[in-house]
Amino acid sequence: MHPPVEAIKIQKGMNADDLVKAMRGAGVMGAGRMGKAAEILEKVFTNSDCRTFFGFAGALVPGGMKGIIIDMLESGVIDVMVTTGANLTHDLAEAFGHRHYQGSHHADDEALNKIGLVRMFDTYMPNKVYEDLEDFFEKHYDSFKDLETIKEFLWKIGELMPSTEKSILKTCYEKKIPLFCPGIADSGIGLMIWGRLAQGKKCQVKAFEDLKEMMDLAWTAKQAGVIYLGGGLPKNFIQQAMQLAPNAASYGVQITMDRPEPGGSSGAELCEGISWGKMEPQAKFVDVICDVTIALPVLWAAVKNRI
Amino acid sequence: MHPPVEAIKIQKGMNADDLVKAMRGAGVMGAGRMGKAAEILEKVFTNSDCRTFFGFAGALVPGGMKGIIIDMLESGVIDVMVTTGANLTHDLAEAFGHRHYQGSHHADDEALNKIGLVRMFDTYMPNKVYEDLEDFFEKHYDSFKDLETIKEFLWKIGELMPSTEKSILKTCYEKKIPLFCPGIADSGIGLMIWGRLAQGKKCQVKAFEDLKEMMDLAWTAKQAGVIYLGGGLPKNFIQQAMQLAPNAASYGVQITMDRPEPGGSSGAELCEGISWGKMEPQAKFVDVICDVTIALPVLWAAVKNRI
Amino acid sequence: MHPPVEAIKIQKGMNADDLVKAMRGAGVMGAGRMGKAAEILEKVFTNSDCRTFFGFAGALVPGGMKGIIIDMLESGVIDVMVTTGANLTHDLAEAFGHRHYQGSHHADDEALNKIGLVRMFDTYMPNKVYEDLEDFFEKHYDSFKDLETIKEFLWKIGELMPSTEKSILKTCYEKKIPLFCPGIADSGIGLMIWGRLAQGKKCQVKAFEDLKEMMDLAWTAKQAGVIYLGGGLPKNFIQQAMQLAPNAASYGVQITMDRPEPGGSSGAELCEGISWGKMEPQAKFVDVICDVTIALPVLWAAVKNRI
Amino acid sequence: MHPPVEAIKIQKGMNADDLVKAMRGAGVMGAGRMGKAAEILEKVFTNSDCRTFFGFAGALVPGGMKGIIIDMLESGVIDVMVTTGANLTHDLAEAFGHRHYQGSHHADDEALNKIGLVRMFDTYMPNKVYEDLEDFFEKHYDSFKDLETIKEFLWKIGELMPSTEKSILKTCYEKKIPLFCPGIADSGIGLMIWGRLAQGKKCQVKAFEDLKEMMDLAWTAKQAGVIYLGGGLPKNFIQQAMQLAPNAASYGVQITMDRPEPGGSSGAELCEGISWGKMEPQAKFVDVICDVTIALPVLWAAVKNRI
Repeated sequence: MHPPVEAIKIQKGMNADDLVKAMRGAGVMGAGRMGKAAEILEKVFTNSDCRTFFGFAGALVPGGMKGIIIDMLESGVIDVMVTTGANLTHDLAEAFGHRHYQGSHHADDEALNKIGLVRMFDTYMPNKVYEDLEDFFEKHYDSFKDLETIKEFLWKIGELMPSTEKSILKTCYEKKIPLFCPGIADSGIGLMIWGRLAQGKKCQVKAFEDLKEMMDLAWTAKQAGVIYLGGGLPKNFIQQAMQLAPNAASYGVQITMDRPEPGGSSGAELCEGISWGKMEPQAKFVDVICDVTIALPVLWAAVKNRI
Repeated sequence: MHPPVEAIKIQKGMNADDLVKAMRGAGVMGAGRMGKAAEILEKVFTNSDCRTFFGFAGALVPGGMKGIIIDMLESGVIDVMVTTGANLTHDLAEAFGHRHYQGSHHADDEALNKIGLVRMFDTYMPNKVYEDLEDFFEKHYDSFKDLETIKEFLWKIGELMPSTEKSILKTCYEKKIPLFCPGIADSGIGLMIWGRLAQGKKCQVKAFEDLKEMMDLAWTAKQAGVIYLGGGLPKNFIQQAMQLAPNAASYGVQITMDRPEPGGSSGAELCEGISWGKMEPQAKFVDVICDVTIALPVLWAAVKNRI
Repeated sequence: MHPPVEAIKIQKGMNADDLVKAMRGAGVMGAGRMGKAAEILEKVFTNSDCRTFFGFAGALVPGGMKGIIIDMLESGVIDVMVTTGANLTHDLAEAFGHRHYQGSHHADDEALNKIGLVRMFDTYMPNKVYEDLEDFFEKHYDSFKDLETIKEFLWKIGELMPSTEKSILKTCYEKKIPLFCPGIADSGIGLMIWGRLAQGKKCQVKAFEDLKEMMDLAWTAKQAGVIYLGGGLPKNFIQQAMQLAPNAASYGVQITMDRPEPGGSSGAELCEGISWGKMEPQAKFVDVICDVTIALPVLWAAVKNRI
Repeated sequence: MHPPVEAIKIQKGMNADDLVKAMRGAGVMGAGRMGKAAEILEKVFTNSDCRTFFGFAGALVPGGMKGIIIDMLESGVIDVMVTTGANLTHDLAEAFGHRHYQGSHHADDEALNKIGLVRMFDTYMPNKVYEDLEDFFEKHYDSFKDLETIKEFLWKIGELMPSTEKSILKTCYEKKIPLFCPGIADSGIGLMIWGRLAQGKKCQVKAFEDLKEMMDLAWTAKQAGVIYLGGGLPKNFIQQAMQLAPNAASYGVQITMDRPEPGGSSGAELCEGISWGKMEPQAKFVDVICDVTIALPVLWAAVKNRI
């Protein structure tokens, strides 16, 4: 009934997949939850009846996760993606040839400001990113002004942006993966559109219009698997689609450092979703309490080997 | 140069304001930060040149904070408010006569689902809230369909909603306090609009349009004080306005349980904003690492006494 | 069955007790748990059949909590105290006339080292504290060398230390409150004893001997109330006494910022103790997820008014 | 000056070492800190002038980490070990043939109590473990009663315990690795000694005596590397030895989920140790904010490959 905890044994040269399988035996605390997450992700990614909804928030591009997310997109394991405007802004910045830099969280912020670096904990980005964003949206604004959904707006960025560097936005566009970002106004990209509005230009992108496609995707899924990296709007936007859809999620993996006790969506345990009808009572799911930039590479290294 | 820590002394029957003043002497760890937060809030609220931008996320209405937020709005200390769709949905639910209930985070979620209760950590809400929301938006939809900003949309809800119970939405409407919610599609209110869109109705609310007023409010502020409860979009939406405005924030108080290390905006220390130009280098600010539902009542009890 | 959440209403000049009573109505998230904690503490402190076991860890003296703990000791509400060697070292340092200072967690640690300040997050202590500790133990060592329990050892410090400044150690000694510190070797006080051992002197204090008195105190309690500030050894030392005693704890209040998921004792929810027989199944208890330096002053201000 | 963040690329079948090397490029947030930790551990473990002080707290045996710790001990990379009595009690329980079991943190604790299972978050242990502990100490008590240090006491357990199952205690004994546990009275082992004391037997183990050997080990180290898993007494006991020793630590790796803001030792950043003289100003060190049961297997899989 209760399987015994098996102490993890490490072999020299062990591959990441075998490591995560060994972690599964370690029980249900951190290591065991990682092992269980890999098992669920494998099921989600290999079940052709299961539509994968993938939400991610937090500084994942500055945190070095861009390549993994693009790899997942290219592997075809993500059917629907929801993220924050900040991640897309960072993605776009790198597409323009900018980089993020390793710094320190004890840096002198006033000094950073003077040399044109902005800080995200211990990672920096050059402030001049915004100049290239300005140029891009100024140059291409006519292509954006009549679009009505945020998804079309983001795919259009993906179409028009440089292709020298792989990007999340361009990959979604090229692979026609629905990409939602309900809080897009709250981002560097939003500020660029504001710049145009301040010039008297118009923008027809609607606040609620994407809900139609998002709800259709949830509604028509035979089964749904939900993956949440870091809480925030992306998680909740998928959660509420599950709530209304006839089938709630059958699988769920959440990775977060947020606490459940304050009651917000970001830190809420997945089991809570059962009360809402967001998660099937018999669903397989797991909450991994971990920094996404630690858990995601390990899990993807394991799961990529299995699919 | 470094003031000594003064051990807090508690007097029988002590009022909350004196308590928080005593906490100030306790240094700069938790207690001292609470004391400092009260001092900064007092400055923000009594400085007529200072425009107050107040962002709050998390389950604050289920957490019993509604009365305090309304009291702050009625006291005139909040000039601009930004929040999540979830808080406004809960606020609306209570305006329709529903209540939130004290429960347990170890509840059986499947059993709760069967009796129509949804769970937020250890607090419940009846699921039938959504029926009243449906009725409200169905009945009044003509009043919403031509509005173009989220702020107008929210004020319209405030105008049309019942007035039997005090509410955040109605108070903002009546006192003409600008209320922003860039992620409104991601909420129970968003789902209601989706219900109308699914019937073939239209909605003209734009995704980026509110940025004009929000940026104007930041741009025209002689001084700005920023207050962030719980991170999320509300914090970042104000932060980015500060970033572009000629004057960054002169005062800041943040209350959050999120960690800074993963690099996301929610857990970021306020000092980080100096690198971005969101916070003046000489600004007075403090990060209070605390559950908002604990810190806010204590701080408001103290500050209300001073203004 | 499930009481409704009552939004907190703040009155100008409100006393801290009324504030905490209002927080109780806010439900069971942070605010409500604070309210519930005050109710339980009131019961524990006013029930003459209930023996109070009070464990505290973390930087509470540097955090300004010394006065509150002494006030609780003097009020007679604490029957048995367990703490860390670090807190007692800080307490002793202040008794020698040293102070802790308000600093910054972004300080230059090498510079602090050069000017003789040691840092605990954002609070400093002068390094020369250790010189006075050296002198004290060198001078009085004959009084310590034949003692056999840690409790006697600590009471002896309380007896011999200066009395110009109130202290936890001296108050425990004077009021004959049993004071346990199973990890005493792991502290500045421990280092002082090591200094004498290195000179070839002897010390007879035993590692396990205090368990006899601690277990007797647990064994003879008609009822037990346990209060844990900050986890660590103090919590577990009381927990294990409850485990073996015929009556487990009837009341419990825990204040901690540690997470439960890694499985350690510090972050463990009190309900877990029921499986161990540390907590009665029908006990009244609450976990307050909060920085102790914020929660304790508020709770003591409320509870002091009620007893 | 600031290296750019390199997005991690995952290869199918990638070994864990290459994975962690790729994480290093991801910067300094979670992934990058893991990569940096592996680099530092490699240096510590391959530098023959460097003495390794390894402290671990938290539920690591129930969490499946026993095999890794034994593997590290057998590999010769740990020179001095400090832990909690709880971990040693769990280690001893498994040596008697008991197991830990995978359960749920939403379990009914009263029901668990009735069937004799005790809970550590989501992992269970049979309560009858204590019967075997009783038998063992009752049978062998004469071997323990005249020992004067906790280290000798623990080695004696290692000598006398069954050898059917590998254990931390026996491995330390057999390999003569100094094992310290300053809080030993605070554990199931402590309770067993109390049982003997309650029968009127004596125990000569001293509270401070181990400090002599511990300080000698710190004092005579040409260089010191400190590794802290989970804070608590084990961390601080090593930290204070570094503080007094002529050479502070040259290398440091800490893995913890505890927050720094409350000011306690468990969550304190390693850089803080520079102010105390516990860490050399030019030392190489890193704080990994992660559940130990996730970070340790990944790091050991990487580092084992390099040494």
